[in-house]
Amino acid sequence: MKNIKLVIEYEGTNYSGWQKQENAITIQEKLEDAIEKLSGEKIKLIGSGRTDGKVHALGQVANFLTTSSIPGKKYKYALKFLLPDDITIIESEEVDLKFHSRFDAIKKRYKYIVYNGELPRAIYRNFSYHVPYNIDINKMIEASQHLIGTHDFSSFMAANSEVNSTVRTIYDISIKKNKELIEFNIEGNSFLRNMVRIIVGTLLYIGFGKINGDNLPKIILDKKRKGAGPTAPPQGLFLEKVYYS
Amino acid sequence: MKNIKLVIEYEGTNYSGWQKQENAITIQEKLEDAIEKLSGEKIKLIGSGRTDGKVHALGQVANFLTTSSIPGKKYKYALKFLLPDDITIIESEEVDLKFHSRFDAIKKRYKYIVYNGELPRAIYRNFSYHVPYNIDINKMIEASQHLIGTHDFSSFMAANSEVNSTVRTIYDISIKKNKELIEFNIEGNSFLRNMVRIIVGTLLYIGFGKINGDNLPKIILDKKRKGAGPTAPPQGLFLEKVYYS
Repeated sequence: MKNIKLVIEYEGTNYSGWQKQENAITIQEKLEDAIEKLSGEKIKLIGSGRTDGKVHALGQVANFLTTSSIPGKKYKYALKFLLPDDITIIESEEVDLKFHSRFDAIKKRYKYIVYNGELPRAIYRNFSYHVPYNIDINKMIEASQHLIGTHDFSSFMAANSEVNSTVRTIYDISIKKNKELIEFNIEGNSFLRNMVRIIVGTLLYIGFGKINGDNLPKIILDKKRKGAGPTAPPQGLFLEKVYYS
Repeated sequence: MKNIKLVIEYEGTNYSGWQKQENAITIQEKLEDAIEKLSGEKIKLIGSGRTDGKVHALGQVANFLTTSSIPGKKYKYALKFLLPDDITIIESEEVDLKFHSRFDAIKKRYKYIVYNGELPRAIYRNFSYHVPYNIDINKMIEASQHLIGTHDFSSFMAANSEVNSTVRTIYDISIKKNKELIEFNIEGNSFLRNMVRIIVGTLLYIGFGKINGDNLPKIILDKKRKGAGPTAPPQGLFLEKVYYS
């Protein structure tokens, strides 16, 4: 038995997200089908976490157990011919049988792109959130410091999510503006459902002046979803990197 | 009568290029249809030049004559709701009745993106040419200097093109590598059919060592298409800017 680890890039535009489901086209399904075609063996792919429909990944990590003799390093070359061209394998290798891409992840980095021009742009449409309003970047940067650390992030979780614990640790948030593009980088140990998108939606509301950044500690402590801002749309979000010890 | 000038961005992926034609979906047709819906008047859109299928534009320019009273500045806002989201208007304005987007263009700048990593990348697939070989950037930069100036560019024109003159002036070519992305920027007074893509294909052959850069003056003088390199694929090409005096 071998345990194969894959690092995967995908454009999420044409998929209903990572997780396999009935009557929807998903990244996980496309990968499992391609691996089965290659090895002749049905496998179960374990992802580091789900991504929603239209969300992209530059470095999603997944692993699967297989009895196939195909060397780990070969998968990235062979799967190229079996996958649609909006899903590509960046790295593949054989890892210890104990490796589990979800349980062993110690840190994740997400990127969120806002296009802050007056009118929408054709080239960016699937890779950014178009926001035509004035945004005070410094207000967002200042407020983002309240989110760093270990908190109960219930206010920043999709309503009705079922989860054992809502406590998470955010290590770093950086926000940079380069001409009309605003890039958010968020690192944490793990994230609740929609957490990155709700953080971005809330920081944008602070940037517009619709939420006062000084209220962020109270919004966290209240543990109520309605205290935070809206969920920013999926197409601006990229799962950039998953870290293992 | 008003003459309206548009600056247009588009992702060419899903189109058979700029120029209207039977049994094909084109950018020109989508724009003419949207303008007709807006003004109630059939118009003929004059582009600064054609772009091939899958080629993108960041700043294509076009103009049309209309009897509509809609102010020039309004088109960019109103057309947003009538165009598919892979075609967007960046600027619109009323210009002198004599303005002609093709005849009056004095300079054009094109960009071509090569992704020079080992394996293809999902995110770049529609916006770059994937070249997994070693490329000697300095050889390309050195050879590109032979193309600058006024020459008969017959060797760099799609076979069987009909054109009055094959003499063109290239003002500048710059080639930069940033990690795995190679960006070519080419400025000239005007370009023959496929000229930018053949220049890039030829420079890449020089970078691979398949063509000796010192032969470029002879390849130009021979005026034979087969002397130059292959036509680089369309998806890496962007019409970046059209200049007027």
